[in-house]
Amino acid sequence: MSINRILIATTNKGKLREFKELFKELEVEIISLEDFEEKIEVVEDRLTFLENAIKKAKEYALFYNIPTIAEDAGLEIEELGGFPGVYSARFFAFKEFGGEEPIQESADRANIMKVLRLMEGKENRRARFVSNVVFYNPDNFGLWTEGYLYGRIAEKPQGEKGFGYDPIFIPEGYSVTLAQLDIEEKNRISHRGKAVRKLLELLKKILK
Amino acid sequence: MSINRILIATTNKGKLREFKELFKELEVEIISLEDFEEKIEVVEDRLTFLENAIKKAKEYALFYNIPTIAEDAGLEIEELGGFPGVYSARFFAFKEFGGEEPIQESADRANIMKVLRLMEGKENRRARFVSNVVFYNPDNFGLWTEGYLYGRIAEKPQGEKGFGYDPIFIPEGYSVTLAQLDIEEKNRISHRGKAVRKLLELLKKILK
Repeated sequence: MSINRILIATTNKGKLREFKELFKELEVEIISLEDFEEKIEVVEDRLTFLENAIKKAKEYALFYNIPTIAEDAGLEIEELGGFPGVYSARFFAFKEFGGEEPIQESADRANIMKVLRLMEGKENRRARFVSNVVFYNPDNFGLWTEGYLYGRIAEKPQGEKGFGYDPIFIPEGYSVTLAQLDIEEKNRISHRGKAVRKLLELLKKILK
Repeated sequence: MSINRILIATTNKGKLREFKELFKELEVEIISLEDFEEKIEVVEDRLTFLENAIKKAKEYALFYNIPTIAEDAGLEIEELGGFPGVYSARFFAFKEFGGEEPIQESADRANIMKVLRLMEGKENRRARFVSNVVFYNPDNFGLWTEGYLYGRIAEKPQGEKGFGYDPIFIPEGYSVTLAQLDIEEKNRISHRGKAVRKLLELLKKILK
């Protein structure tokens, strides 16, 4: 099977750069949603990361008729029964667990503040980041990989790198947060890095 | 990556036999749910074939810790807006579209009777069978394929072979129903046959 182009279904420039770097080996052209004038909106309304990522990959792949990669990821906190989970990006607005958190600086900051408020005084701070990366070929097959990063929720935000919940997530075996790690080290250990490398390994075999 | 055994997550002996035959080339041991004493029940409660098949493959794979293949399939009728769809197996009990159909001979027969009743006098009889086959490796990746068989709903049941809606489905280019075709010919053109052969082709590359 031969493929010339792959669409990375993200509008996040940082993620796109990471994918382009990692996918160099495949010798296919990597394009992004920015490369299309006609836009569609895909609502991430499913109950799992995998179902959201599959929905995105399929809808974009079928609309633009091009093999597509999409990702969904989030934070799962044991003490909160796996929340914020698929609500990670909009946890601040989630009405359960103490209601809405006002946005002050940014949505990221509001999400972090809500988690810290809910975790105040809690002993069990175990958590994990989950990433599901999906490749879908309009030629009727799909492929997904999963990556996990285990760790714990910090008592307060630290570090300026990364994004999302990185400033309050301390990976297992570390004493600093993800937001204090260089991008190379983060990618090496991160849920997304693991899932993307696994996908790349499978795609290399399939596209041969 | 090397795999010694694959679980086919089906209790349908006919399907299991087909899978074993098709998967000979892979040189792995094919086992079925019957080979385990400890049983779990997986509820097919999702809104798409793919999500149901993924749910089954993942739950069995993680419970028995073995790479697993699961399938979900059904009939989509254009005039009924895609129904019975994921409700194909229990359409007779589905409360929409004219309510429940009493079971007389069998659930298959009740499903067929309900479809024929709803399609009485309808001009547009276009329909398709859809199959989604999923392979899931507890080593954190999955793979799915899709197969379609286009055709139309017959005016009355004909043929004794196959199962499910086969007696009222006339494939494109045929003048007989699926239930009038030999198993070899059915497998050659069927949604399930196409999806399984595609999966096999991908697995051969990945497991090399």
